[in-house]
This record gives sequence, C-alpha cells and structure tokens, in this order.
Amino acid sequence: MAESKLINPHGSESLKILLLEGNEKAEELKKAETLPKLNLSSRETGDLIMMGIGGFTPLEGFMSHDDWKGVCSEMKMKDGLFWPIPITLSHNEKINPGTELCLVSGDTNEFMGTMKVSESYQIDKKFECKNVFTTDDMEHPGVKMVMEQKDWNIAGTVKVLSESYFPEEFKGIYQRPSESRKIFEEKGWRTIAALQLRNPMHRSHEYLAKIAIEVSDGLYIHQLVGKLKPGDIPADVRVNCINTLVENYFLKEKVVMGGYPLDMRYAGPREGLLHGVFRQNFGCSHMIIGRDHAGVGDYYGPFDAQDSYYKLWDGALECQMLPIDWTFWCYKCGGMASMKTCPHPKEDRLFLSGTALRKALSEGGDIPAEFSRPEVLTVLKDYYATLKEKVEVKMHGHATGDAEVKK
Amino acid sequence: MAESKLINPHGSESLKILLLEGNEKAEELKKAETLPKLNLSSRETGDLIMMGIGGFTPLEGFMSHDDWKGVCSEMKMKDGLFWPIPITLSHNEKINPGTELCLVSGDTNEFMGTMKVSESYQIDKKFECKNVFTTDDMEHPGVKMVMEQKDWNIAGTVKVLSESYFPEEFKGIYQRPSESRKIFEEKGWRTIAALQLRNPMHRSHEYLAKIAIEVSDGLYIHQLVGKLKPGDIPADVRVNCINTLVENYFLKEKVVMGGYPLDMRYAGPREGLLHGVFRQNFGCSHMIIGRDHAGVGDYYGPFDAQDSYYKLWDGALECQMLPIDWTFWCYKCGGMASMKTCPHPKEDRLFLSGTALRKALSEGGDIPAEFSRPEVLTVLKDYYATLKEKVEVKMHGHATGDAEVKK
Repeated sequence: MAESKLINPHGSESLKILLLEGNEKAEELKKAETLPKLNLSSRETGDLIMMGIGGFTPLEGFMSHDDWKGVCSEMKMKDGLFWPIPITLSHNEKINPGTELCLVSGDTNEFMGTMKVSESYQIDKKFECKNVFTTDDMEHPGVKMVMEQKDWNIAGTVKVLSESYFPEEFKGIYQRPSESRKIFEEKGWRTIAALQLRNPMHRSHEYLAKIAIEVSDGLYIHQLVGKLKPGDIPADVRVNCINTLVENYFLKEKVVMGGYPLDMRYAGPREGLLHGVFRQNFGCSHMIIGRDHAGVGDYYGPFDAQDSYYKLWDGALECQMLPIDWTFWCYKCGGMASMKTCPHPKEDRLFLSGTALRKALSEGGDIPAEFSRPEVLTVLKDYYATLKEKVEVKMHGHATGDAEVKK
Repeated sequence: MAESKLINPHGSESLKILLLEGNEKAEELKKAETLPKLNLSSRETGDLIMMGIGGFTPLEGFMSHDDWKGVCSEMKMKDGLFWPIPITLSHNEKINPGTELCLVSGDTNEFMGTMKVSESYQIDKKFECKNVFTTDDMEHPGVKMVMEQKDWNIAGTVKVLSESYFPEEFKGIYQRPSESRKIFEEKGWRTIAALQLRNPMHRSHEYLAKIAIEVSDGLYIHQLVGKLKPGDIPADVRVNCINTLVENYFLKEKVVMGGYPLDMRYAGPREGLLHGVFRQNFGCSHMIIGRDHAGVGDYYGPFDAQDSYYKLWDGALECQMLPIDWTFWCYKCGGMASMKTCPHPKEDRLFLSGTALRKALSEGGDIPAEFSRPEVLTVLKDYYATLKEKVEVKMHGHATGDAEVKK
C-alpha cells in the first residue's frame, strides 16, 4: 500500500515504443523513400502513432488473421492477451510476405512509418462489425469505417517515423505515455483516474471528474484529438472549454491534461475497454466509465460499457473501471447527484437535451448555471456564433447566386 | 471481477462467533452461576460482545501478554496477525491459570460470558498509552480509560452469553456481522463502503457518504451505540437525525444502517484502523476515513488516520481505505467540495465551528441549509430544547433551594 510505483503498461513491464528517433529514424526515412508506398486512412494513421508512442503497448504492428479473429470473437490475441478492438490495416490487393512497405498518411502524404509484411488476409467485415459494434448497420459511423476498408488486411510489424501534425497542432495537449507517466511519477501519484473526453465538459462531467479526484491521487483528463463524426464539437474548441473549466473550478495540481491521436470508432462497450487498455499505458490505474460511454445513437444501452468491464475475466485488464451513474443537478438535493444518490422525482432534476442545448447556444437562449459553467458557455457561444456567421455567409452567397440565375 | 463474493472476515475464512445460543447457552449460564465473578467495565463489555458476534474475528478472547505487547508496539499479534488496539480485561489481582470465571457487566450485573484464564500479567500503562494514543495525557479520554484500569490484565478464551441491552435498546439499528453480510449478499453487493458515525450527519458527512455510494455498490452507515464522552450527542438522537436524512436525501436501497456496541476510545489513527478491521468483519470492502477520524481534542493531525492506512504493510488489512479530504460547501463552486476539488479561497467556503453550531442549535439561531439539512436541524433543535428544559428545571430547583436557605 505504501508503494508509489505506477501501474505497469498492458501485458508488459515497460512501454513498447515503436517510434524511431535520431539516426535510426534518419536511416529508416532514407530507406522508406525506396520502398513501395501504402496509403493509410485517418484511423490507421492514429493507430500507427499510438503504436509508435507506446499507447498500444504491447502491440508490435497491425494484427494478423489469428489475432484479428480472436480479438473479434473473444477479445483475445492469439497469445491470450486481452485486446478488445482489432487494430488492422487494409489495402486493395494482397502483398507478399517479407515485403517492406512505406506507410504514408492519406491526409498529409507524410511518411508515417515502415512495415514488414507477414501476412495478407481477407475478412468477413460483417463478422467483425457484429462482434465489435454489435451491429452491421451502415448508419453506424464505426461500421461504415470498417465496411469501407479495402479488401485485404495486411499484417506485420511496424517502425514509426512520425507523430504527424499532432505535436504541433495540439501543442500542450498532445502527450506520449512516457510523458504522462513522468508527470504522475513526479507528483508521487499512484492512483490516477482517466476521464475520456470527446465533448466539452458541462457540470455532469465536472461532477464525474471531481468524484474521481476525491477518491484518487489525481485526474487525467485525456482528450481525443483525432477525428470525430460531423457535427461534434471540434477539438480546439473543446480544449478551450476544458481549460476554462479547470482554470476556474478545479485545483490545478490535481489535474493533468493530455490528448491522444485516435479517431473515434463509436464502438461503445468495446471502445470503453480499449480506453482502459491504453489509459493503463498512459499510467492510469482507473478508467472512468459513465453513461453511454463511447456510444453513438441508440446502438448501446447506457451502461453496456460498464457491464463489459464487469464481464471481463480475472487478470484481463489491470486498469480498473471507476463506474459512475447518470449525473445531473437536483434542485431538491441542492447539488449534483446521480441515479445512485438522488431519491427525488424527475421534476426536481435539471435535464437538458443535446438539441435544446445546441439551440440555446446558437440562438442565445439561457442555459442554467446548474447545467454548465458560465465561463464554458461563453466559449461555446463564441464557437456557435462563428458557425452561424459561416452559415450566413454561405446563405448570402447562395441567395446572390439565385438572384443571378433569376436575372 | 464478475465474482459476487463478499470480502472474507479479518484473518479468517469465516466469522469467529463466540456467542452461545440455545442449549449450549443454557448450560453455560447454569455453570456460570457457580463460577467466581469478575466485573467488566463498559469498554470491556462492548469488546466482549463484539467477540461474541464475530465483530472482532478472529479473536478468541482477551489478549495475552505477548499479543498485548506486539499489538502496542507494532500492531501485530504474536502469530503475526495485524491488530491495531489491545483488547484486554483488567482485574485487581492475579488469577491462577486454568480458573474459569463468570464475566459480569458492571453496568447491568448481567452474566455476559465465561472465561478460561490462561495468564495474568501486569503492564506498563504509559507504554500502552504512548503507543496506542501517542500520548499519556490524562485529559485524553482514552488514556484516562487505560490508566484507570485495574492492576492485572487477565487473558483467556471466552464464551459469550449475552449482547446486553443493545438488541432491545437499539432495535432496528444494532446488528451482527452475520446480519449485515446477509443483507449485502441478498442485495448482490460486493463493494461496500462503511461510514463510521458517532455524530449527527450534516452535509459534509452526506457528501462523504454520497461519494462512497457513487463509487461502490452501496453504503453501510455504521453507528457507534456504545458509550461516548460527556457532551457528545446521544445515540438515539443521532440515529433519529440520520434516519431523517436518509429518508429525505438518499436512495434508500443504496444504504444499509447498523449499530455496533463499542465504546469510543478516541485513539485516532489506531482506532481508524480498528474501524477497518471490524468493518471487514461486517462485510465491508472499504472504510471511509475522513478528516480527524476517531480523534479528540488536538491530539492527532487531521489526516493522521489516513496516513496510518498508507503506512500499513502489504496484506495487513484486506478492507481498503476510502480516504476523503476535508469537505464543505463552496459558494463559488455552487456545491459541496473538498480541499482536493475546490480551488477557491476560504471566503467562498462555508465553515461553522462546533461551538457556533451548538450555540445556534440551543439558542435558535439560523444555520444555513448548505451546512445542514433543515429536517436534521429540526431533530437537533428539539433535542437541545429538551436539554435547555432540563437545565432550566435544575436552575429553578436550585433557585428555590437558595430561596429556602434565605428564609
């Protein structure tokens, strides 16, 4: 109990870092120029960077057929290691084993890494989707991503050459597991709860976060800075909201903030588990799982992600879940509460639908301070105002166009 | 993780229950009448009942010299078992080993149990006090209790015959570990946090309790119904306050309430540890340790009890601490908060000294709802009003007496 050592990375005593630096990197880059090129999707690029910085410890590359199949059907790699979501790379044709490839970002054309092919295989995409997302409905953004993959999965170990634009564009937020671990160690923390964020923090998230702080040494607010589905609040606005909230309502020494480069898969329970796996790699002992974690639409029950943790076999995952119920302001309680702590009827509680919130934000309606801190609302209202300006500019242009047609 | 089994009792796979029932009890009672009698102090009676109901599992009787010494100096019984406070019985003369005794309650003259003496020994009381209470100041109520013990400690295994007046006088509250465990099992709980109470619950305690509920399956509000120092709120008033609070502000299915028959020792950190030991026996996986746990006066630092948990050796105690910082209402936060979660200056926080609270309660001053729930304040004000009446009756009687003298 007196021990101050951080939790080990997943399935390993140390981080498996595949990112090359210095001379090694320079030489590999030179070689990469001579290799056949393979374009990465945005999701694949994020996954590759995570392998580079040790966020996906102990993975050494994109998954083989056996790993893929075990992960889909029973969340186990071939060697028995717990892993909840396939980390795969697709291409439109098979590639001979032994071939070395240069992996290129489809977004930026940057050389992201090299790969030594061990296997090419075809998959039943619907099998993957039904297992991982519990649905093969193309309306599900994660399913769509898988169904649009190319025909062949290419497996093999990788060397990583770049972290892409993340360190620059998300300066001060983007963080490697070695960095978060160093900060936690310097603070003498042992129990750290990770808060996954892909939305601005309102008071319900603040409440989750503060419960976590009350019961652990510190909080790691870990934001997704990869891609989201259209309509979600962009990362820079969100980072701004969260900085403002922490600045005004948290004890700064109890909070560490970081960002990670993955795209959302919206895989609900399975993604909730993946969040535990890589938070462990970032040094966190606990993963906060709230209501509808990593969900989208109505594909998952509000506490499916919590259930997925309860159903894990012993020893699957060292990072423990910190489950928190649905939270809200209750006027009778005179404070934040949850379904586990508040005995009062619905009428006493403050609920605001996403639609009502967006309407109030874009049209300037009132949002109670019990729902969101005024400082955060200011940031969001500014963002919605710029959106509105864009829409107005577009509409104005369009109207002019129409008028021209009418001429 | 999916396992639903409750935590094992301390140092044992099952509760060590020394309370006899039915025929066994009837026969032992008959024998007891023939045995030499030994009077128990109130503290010793409470300890004996705890051994009877399995609350002090795995103890089998009052401690031997080696156990006493190990517990005092390193919190270890002779066999290595962790135990933080001596459980001893004193008498004014030595008793031959092998003697059987009838243990009689000094308060009620009831036959409480029998004991087979294994050893009589004298102790350095100051050594015990300095180790257990960190002081030998006679102003400390726990020290006073030890210093006033008789000259010989009598060790030996016990059989327990009665739970005294507790089951009757604290009907619905007094509870055996087998009963709390049964309730927890029926509820399917696995993680249960124990809240130690010897005072009415104000909002700061409610906040501790609710944090515990948020992060576990349920809360065990476990009240001391043994003796306190003069001036503390009596158990029946306190039980009333807590019932009222739970009734109005908690989800009843998340809370189990129980009472235990010990006297307060005010041993701060050591008593905080004992609280963990016997809560484990009652089936709790976690023990809430807040500010100044089990303290009195200025003998202990506000977080000494938490530190005592951090300093335990691995495997000493299975029941884990749930440490909570100093809590209060913060007007800037607009909610309950603690030193770990609130960044605002003192001026924004609501603090009420015990003196100010007692003054407002007895003189009818205003106490903000952010400090205590109005329903709880009503119960307390009623109690203080009866106190005042008693004082007035006394004063009136005294005045009359004076007047008579003057005649």
